[in-house]
Amino acid sequence: MIRAGILGGTGYTGGELLRILRDHPSVKVEVVTSRKESGRRIDEYHTHLRGVYSLKFIDVDLKEFRECDVVFSALPHGSSMEYIPELLDMGIRVIDLSADYRLAKDVYEKTYGLKHKGYRRAVYGLPEIYRDLSFADLVANPGCYPTGAILSVAPLAKKRLIETVVFDSKSGVTGAGVTPTEFTHFPNIADNIVPYRVTNHRHFPEIEQELTKLGGKMRIAFTPHLIPVNRGILTTAHVYLKGPLDKEEIQEIYEEFYSDCYFIRFVDSPSVGRVRGSNFCDIGFFSDGERLVVISAIDNLVKGASGQAVQNMNLMFGIPEERGLTHLPVFP
Amino acid sequence: MIRAGILGGTGYTGGELLRILRDHPSVKVEVVTSRKESGRRIDEYHTHLRGVYSLKFIDVDLKEFRECDVVFSALPHGSSMEYIPELLDMGIRVIDLSADYRLAKDVYEKTYGLKHKGYRRAVYGLPEIYRDLSFADLVANPGCYPTGAILSVAPLAKKRLIETVVFDSKSGVTGAGVTPTEFTHFPNIADNIVPYRVTNHRHFPEIEQELTKLGGKMRIAFTPHLIPVNRGILTTAHVYLKGPLDKEEIQEIYEEFYSDCYFIRFVDSPSVGRVRGSNFCDIGFFSDGERLVVISAIDNLVKGASGQAVQNMNLMFGIPEERGLTHLPVFP
Amino acid sequence: MIRAGILGGTGYTGGELLRILRDHPSVKVEVVTSRKESGRRIDEYHTHLRGVYSLKFIDVDLKEFRECDVVFSALPHGSSMEYIPELLDMGIRVIDLSADYRLAKDVYEKTYGLKHKGYRRAVYGLPEIYRDLSFADLVANPGCYPTGAILSVAPLAKKRLIETVVFDSKSGVTGAGVTPTEFTHFPNIADNIVPYRVTNHRHFPEIEQELTKLGGKMRIAFTPHLIPVNRGILTTAHVYLKGPLDKEEIQEIYEEFYSDCYFIRFVDSPSVGRVRGSNFCDIGFFSDGERLVVISAIDNLVKGASGQAVQNMNLMFGIPEERGLTHLPVFP
Amino acid sequence: MIRAGILGGTGYTGGELLRILRDHPSVKVEVVTSRKESGRRIDEYHTHLRGVYSLKFIDVDLKEFRECDVVFSALPHGSSMEYIPELLDMGIRVIDLSADYRLAKDVYEKTYGLKHKGYRRAVYGLPEIYRDLSFADLVANPGCYPTGAILSVAPLAKKRLIETVVFDSKSGVTGAGVTPTEFTHFPNIADNIVPYRVTNHRHFPEIEQELTKLGGKMRIAFTPHLIPVNRGILTTAHVYLKGPLDKEEIQEIYEEFYSDCYFIRFVDSPSVGRVRGSNFCDIGFFSDGERLVVISAIDNLVKGASGQAVQNMNLMFGIPEERGLTHLPVFP
Repeated sequence: MIRAGILGGTGYTGGELLRILRDHPSVKVEVVTSRKESGRRIDEYHTHLRGVYSLKFIDVDLKEFRECDVVFSALPHGSSMEYIPELLDMGIRVIDLSADYRLAKDVYEKTYGLKHKGYRRAVYGLPEIYRDLSFADLVANPGCYPTGAILSVAPLAKKRLIETVVFDSKSGVTGAGVTPTEFTHFPNIADNIVPYRVTNHRHFPEIEQELTKLGGKMRIAFTPHLIPVNRGILTTAHVYLKGPLDKEEIQEIYEEFYSDCYFIRFVDSPSVGRVRGSNFCDIGFFSDGERLVVISAIDNLVKGASGQAVQNMNLMFGIPEERGLTHLPVFP
Repeated sequence: MIRAGILGGTGYTGGELLRILRDHPSVKVEVVTSRKESGRRIDEYHTHLRGVYSLKFIDVDLKEFRECDVVFSALPHGSSMEYIPELLDMGIRVIDLSADYRLAKDVYEKTYGLKHKGYRRAVYGLPEIYRDLSFADLVANPGCYPTGAILSVAPLAKKRLIETVVFDSKSGVTGAGVTPTEFTHFPNIADNIVPYRVTNHRHFPEIEQELTKLGGKMRIAFTPHLIPVNRGILTTAHVYLKGPLDKEEIQEIYEEFYSDCYFIRFVDSPSVGRVRGSNFCDIGFFSDGERLVVISAIDNLVKGASGQAVQNMNLMFGIPEERGLTHLPVFP
Repeated sequence: MIRAGILGGTGYTGGELLRILRDHPSVKVEVVTSRKESGRRIDEYHTHLRGVYSLKFIDVDLKEFRECDVVFSALPHGSSMEYIPELLDMGIRVIDLSADYRLAKDVYEKTYGLKHKGYRRAVYGLPEIYRDLSFADLVANPGCYPTGAILSVAPLAKKRLIETVVFDSKSGVTGAGVTPTEFTHFPNIADNIVPYRVTNHRHFPEIEQELTKLGGKMRIAFTPHLIPVNRGILTTAHVYLKGPLDKEEIQEIYEEFYSDCYFIRFVDSPSVGRVRGSNFCDIGFFSDGERLVVISAIDNLVKGASGQAVQNMNLMFGIPEERGLTHLPVFP
Repeated sequence: MIRAGILGGTGYTGGELLRILRDHPSVKVEVVTSRKESGRRIDEYHTHLRGVYSLKFIDVDLKEFRECDVVFSALPHGSSMEYIPELLDMGIRVIDLSADYRLAKDVYEKTYGLKHKGYRRAVYGLPEIYRDLSFADLVANPGCYPTGAILSVAPLAKKRLIETVVFDSKSGVTGAGVTPTEFTHFPNIADNIVPYRVTNHRHFPEIEQELTKLGGKMRIAFTPHLIPVNRGILTTAHVYLKGPLDKEEIQEIYEEFYSDCYFIRFVDSPSVGRVRGSNFCDIGFFSDGERLVVISAIDNLVKGASGQAVQNMNLMFGIPEERGLTHLPVFP
């Protein structure tokens, strides 16, 4: 039994880790921290989990994790780095859901406007690409947008086929976090769609870093939008290839690349509703001869965050990647 | 031309006053205050009004209203009372959209847990009931829930026919105001419905006061719910009458009571979508022999707030009640 | 291993049976029928189940069920009755999700305007009330509204405490089924709320029959509304008791009545979002001294249909009621 | 007073024409046809217009239009062409909201898979581009997607600055029309986003025709998505220019191009909510140095259909383009 801890359990990703891990046959959640809710029963805060978790939040105290085999950090970026080095030094394996270990140090500092206080090397935890995690002690769980974007074109990037790719992404509102803001105020987003950080979202360097690592130089662009949806990211990747490819060739490239990937499903009509609550990434292809369109759909809180974190944990501990993650989509 | 001022122009009701009054042929908005946005162009804040209002918010200074014939106070309860007595003393007529002047003083203080600092007598501005406002200097614009509730059964109350009435109300999220809170955080209300203050909402004493004034003692109950809708209140009034009445008799009672009321429409299937953006109150009746169900639908920001305030203004100034308020519903 | 068949697998309840039973450790789905989709892979139709079910729909042919231990009928009312008697005669146990076996024959015929062609005695499958199903061959799975309504006041009814109860119910749109109609056309219901069959919904006789059976005569009323939500029914039960009871006494009555019921959760703030995708029924109480308000929240497709059907199956086969049904709510 | 007729008044665009024209000071609606609703009062069908239109639908009979100065055809494509030539021959000016007269004949026949039965030359009624309509007898009102797409880049196209433009468009569900389908079934689109006709939507040839006419050859692509919104199209135009331009130069090009256009507003943060119910087209620019992103937001039923039709009518009759169209956006 893997003993797991959660650092920062009150956000959406913390709640999802708790939901997912309750059903994981090889894991037991032992410690969950929260500064502001310490002492409160978890299921009094995450009321949808009522009756499921009698465990209480504790204040942050790294010693409490000493019996853990793995700790998930669901703290915001900038906070994760304050604790992770010490956890690693305690011999605990860590999966960080924040941005703190996803980027090269200098790119991180420039992108997030912060000095990195505890840099360590981490594996970028997109398990469809980095499949061997058995030796990893620190996994940087990808951002939600990069997950959808990279998975949509990784097979093409790997083959160095892409001339230009424009990612036009549409995200549900849980992606903006659990804290109320003007941006997430119901009347500002219901019956509406709102583009934001149109050319300067902080997930762009992450997309660029990973695609470039995979496939060398290409022209990459990214624009996110908030849609009146709770969960899900739909990524529409508009791709201009370096040369012509017919649909069968493309299909083959994708099927080969993702041949042993449980969570990749090829579908005719991707939509976020049809992956809701699950760890699947649905992918569809469309071509007009000149432009290839690849569309991916994920649940931003599952495959885009906590589900992927558990998938990474499975691979770190030599468990099949899908264990505890076979929840079917709740549709409609 | 009526010169109008708005005290507190940054909330939803302030925005709606601005939207409505732009189209009013007899009114000009001269002054709009805001502490936090003072100096900023109105249409830079209310961006949907872009290009329409070059006027700037000014800080609160009652002298600036001295040329106004009427001031709408769109401040929160507790703040309105700080300014209204002085405005009245300046000889300016006032329509208060807050709760400060709706209730008897003692009921107000108990309900809102505040000492009333500037009590004056006001007319309760539900113009379908209090139609002569020509002499009124201070009109207390009703709450959104009371508007929908009272209008749904006023004709029956007046005839003293009601034994029991249970108001089960469903409100759009703009009713909770412009300030982001957990309650209005998109993921907490989208794809959801949330009852709140189930037996102790502060609009209950207002409903009780007015229905009792109109029709004496009856058993009254009220429960509100928040629904994933921007605008609108649907009130389902479950009525047990003191004696049997057939549908025709009821119809007649309503048609007589509302005979000269422009904004009351009798419909077969009331819904908030079909009054969106308009000052109409749609009413439908249904009976199963034992119980009468009367359903009313209003736009909470228009008939439930700013539209009704303008309707009150019209009646105060001897203008037809519908002037400047004939916007048709935007459906779907 | 229980071998299960599904009669009519293309509706929402069919889809949910498939989703739920995939995770049930004691059940295997062997046969799923559909007239219009016969021959097609299930996961090409229910695309959210992609990759999960390679089984194909077959045309209706009761002989195909001969190896089944249990058949779920997810056909519409009027159709179920055409097949169920024969299935029973084949020695197969049946759970009918339609209305065909919920009501006394005469009440059924009057309510649904149909001649009953294959009447048999059935157990009303609300397992919190009818807990011993070990001998049942035919279980009539309750309607979604009756499930939420009856569970909200059953403990009070049992004690004969209710004078009047008004059920004001709000349902998500999946309750209206998978077939597109004007009623379910997105623009007619989004950003809207629509009351319908205000005093004459066909679930009323079912509510009345069961509450009366449980607690004798009382004054009962029911009005449903459609809300812009996919799943869920929130039932607001406005109750006038025959005599005063304090909140502790009520709490005690409920806790005793539901003492061994896994799926009943008592909560402070019920909402449909917090039971989404799960078989829980969340219940909260509120009192203003005169009126008691009990609010229940269920997922109409799970506890209001397919989840409850599986719960009934468990009890029929002597399995703990929660087996295969412990999915946690997907919130937000 | 312009006497107007509406051919096909039961769809969303018919309803919007009725809503808009009620407030137009120079127009009176005299005749509205409908095959299926003939004889019924308009406001019994369009129930949100209750009390506003006592006029009845009549069956299609072109003679009834003989007193009209202008007829709006709100029939589906393929039907409009059956009536329009005869109306023109009767000396009546026509604005066609269908696709029948937007494209060159051969392109139309190929795109819509129909033989054109009544081809006439028409002006493409995008009034920001074709401003002189005083001599036009037949105006082809643009499609909703082309309106948003073309307006977003027309100034750049005109200057021949575009190398590649990818239009990623997101539409509200009213764009799919008033007839219920699986596509518009509430549970299929609520809490979801659905790409469709990803590389082969019929509005693409229209976008291509007009942009090419304006600015010669460029690489153009278009993908539409359906979002859970009633009204509105947000078009995200990802533009690669032929050479570098700074934001000020771009701003200048747009301001010059749209200098006398009442309905174009330049905004920092375009969103469909902030144009809801109005004829505005809000446009915002964003640049990352390499890629220019231009985002436009319109109400698909107003600027994308009926409002634009009235704007065209105004220009045909020598009236200021904004007359009767100054409704402010209803936000939130």
